[in-house]
Amino acid sequence: MAVGLSEPGVILPVPGIRLAACTAGLYRKQRPDFALLAMDEGSVSAAVFTSNQFYAAPVQIARQHLKQTSPRFYIINAGNANAGTGKRGVDDARRICQELAAIAGCHGSAVLPFSTGVIGEYLPVTKMLEKVPELYASLGENNWLPVVRAIMTTDTIAKAVSRQVTIDGRIVTISGIAKGSGMIRPDMATMLAFITTDVLADRNTLNCILNNAVTKSFNRISVDGDTSTNDACILAATGKSRCDINQNQHNRTVFEQVLTEVFVHLAQAIVRDGEGATKFITIEVNEGRNSDECLQVAYAIANSPLVKTAFFASDPNWGRILAAIGRAGIPELAIPLVTVYLGDVCLVKGGVRSAQYTESAGQKIMRQQEITLRISLGRGDSRETIWTCDLSHDYVRINAEYRS
Amino acid sequence: MAVGLSEPGVILPVPGIRLAACTAGLYRKQRPDFALLAMDEGSVSAAVFTSNQFYAAPVQIARQHLKQTSPRFYIINAGNANAGTGKRGVDDARRICQELAAIAGCHGSAVLPFSTGVIGEYLPVTKMLEKVPELYASLGENNWLPVVRAIMTTDTIAKAVSRQVTIDGRIVTISGIAKGSGMIRPDMATMLAFITTDVLADRNTLNCILNNAVTKSFNRISVDGDTSTNDACILAATGKSRCDINQNQHNRTVFEQVLTEVFVHLAQAIVRDGEGATKFITIEVNEGRNSDECLQVAYAIANSPLVKTAFFASDPNWGRILAAIGRAGIPELAIPLVTVYLGDVCLVKGGVRSAQYTESAGQKIMRQQEITLRISLGRGDSRETIWTCDLSHDYVRINAEYRS
Repeated sequence: MAVGLSEPGVILPVPGIRLAACTAGLYRKQRPDFALLAMDEGSVSAAVFTSNQFYAAPVQIARQHLKQTSPRFYIINAGNANAGTGKRGVDDARRICQELAAIAGCHGSAVLPFSTGVIGEYLPVTKMLEKVPELYASLGENNWLPVVRAIMTTDTIAKAVSRQVTIDGRIVTISGIAKGSGMIRPDMATMLAFITTDVLADRNTLNCILNNAVTKSFNRISVDGDTSTNDACILAATGKSRCDINQNQHNRTVFEQVLTEVFVHLAQAIVRDGEGATKFITIEVNEGRNSDECLQVAYAIANSPLVKTAFFASDPNWGRILAAIGRAGIPELAIPLVTVYLGDVCLVKGGVRSAQYTESAGQKIMRQQEITLRISLGRGDSRETIWTCDLSHDYVRINAEYRS
Repeated sequence: MAVGLSEPGVILPVPGIRLAACTAGLYRKQRPDFALLAMDEGSVSAAVFTSNQFYAAPVQIARQHLKQTSPRFYIINAGNANAGTGKRGVDDARRICQELAAIAGCHGSAVLPFSTGVIGEYLPVTKMLEKVPELYASLGENNWLPVVRAIMTTDTIAKAVSRQVTIDGRIVTISGIAKGSGMIRPDMATMLAFITTDVLADRNTLNCILNNAVTKSFNRISVDGDTSTNDACILAATGKSRCDINQNQHNRTVFEQVLTEVFVHLAQAIVRDGEGATKFITIEVNEGRNSDECLQVAYAIANSPLVKTAFFASDPNWGRILAAIGRAGIPELAIPLVTVYLGDVCLVKGGVRSAQYTESAGQKIMRQQEITLRISLGRGDSRETIWTCDLSHDYVRINAEYRS
């Protein structure tokens, strides 16, 4: 049950972007599992990938291809991560790219492959190759929802969002999709996210914008502290709106603001749909000496199984929160300066339980589905916000049953 | 259900050590919750405490008192950690020490206080003070089992062990107890462990021996990655056996070997009784460049909720293991050199699934209650072993219900 998240409404077509999805039989139960996203010529892509050293074959190929040329296609499968598959996995991913390139009449390096699902199994390449012509033939600009459904794994709800904004008299569209629910502690990227737009941007501008947006969104979430082998976040710009953000700083500022909203929406959607999540938790850490230490404290709390089960149980167990802050490894942290707020209720002041605090006030906040935890470290001006979820019985059930 | 652990048998008296336990009403349900350990004059103590910066009041007092004099008493309560209680908590702990000192005719600093239980509540001092005379009056050398029961919190089984060894013609006895089940990722110490012996040792020797033993035992376990605010591990030597380990290197070597067995037994017992544990898992990391990186890899695996739920489900999901290795942050780790064995079954060789591996062979090992996971990094000669447990439905249940 995703927390405060409903099925996406209409996802706006982005001029220059076409999509398709089909069923290639990657799951025992037939379901859409293979998808294609095509960009018109002249489009520019920027990407960030997992920092996990055990990265999957498609991540390796996508990185290589990105260096060689401007991508025209992203080809994506669920049900199999093509990770831990060595040379054969790399060859498999390359064959799929080449098959599509032959049909589309482009170079193989213009295709970026993406995979998500079980680690350590070989791709069913033959089945997938057979479906590539069907995918290519059914490309259309209104296929966002079939595509987002085809890339889901343990997700319980599709994650997609669109925004339109008029910049300098031109209508700019942003439409993005993401998948992810478990193995979520992105580091330089997320599970899989594809965000497209029709602004006009060169590669450097787009890379810079992508990195800024990821820092404020996909790199600020954690479901279970596990960084995936297949994380990737891609931003594509087709240029069709002719709204130039390379030279015009005003255009760029307005665009980045709306784009960041799209990124944050998708990143939060992953947490809201975190495996077994029943609560959506915002953790704000203020008054740190620098951004790094704020994040260290925030993630020590977000990844503490004890804090997460307390949230699940609606138990305002602030001792577990303080214990997590205390083990975050912040040098010379003065506990007497630490303040903790749960919603608008002060839990801890001067390192001890606030004199005004009552258990019933704490519980009232804890019973809500969306909770903000605010910590002040009392030692600087830096602040960071991250989003996480609770640890429930269903997290264990989902991950115990994942391959069975 | 503790994994492969039965109720302790006879715990041998240690000459010079007497103990007592009683019920002081720290729990709603009446149960033993207050304990005393007394050492004869001339005894020496060594201690390590939590590295959590948010340490509890008794930890602060115990550290101070240790600097001032040789302890004669450890006074211990369950049901309340006296953590996050600020100045009042410190005063409370001190009053209990002073009450006992007045009765026993020693200085207040000869009493070390220890607390374990819920964080953030004030001690019911009045009730406890009333019980101090009863505790002191009932000291006896055969009260190990009542005492270990009085310090349990979410533990499902008492953890105690004795060894006797003849060194240089003298019988040396070691008896130790520990408590702990959740919030276990000790760092310089464990939850609470009291190990006593009758060797003759000075403070420096004892400190050195304690640090060595803790490094091989309590600092090599993790249940849930959370370091407690109240961790303490204490080693007391009464000298009554007259077996001198200060000057005689042979005596010391033999003693340290047996003592380490006692420490490892107690540390493993905590993991075997880890909250909700159904599997006891040994993680060996070999061929690292140094000890630190071996531990980094071992704990990345041990603390991964995804790996832990796979163990719970008896699922040989080696992809999750490789993903954890990959995100451990080891610089320049070459995945093609990584080998992973589950028991005697090779899962991964050259960074990919071993050619000989079959799912049924992996599952056969996974279904066992005690599992060894061996990883070789292929880049050096260092090795480390740690112990952990799985993540089950019961972990969530226990921690969701802890205060309710």
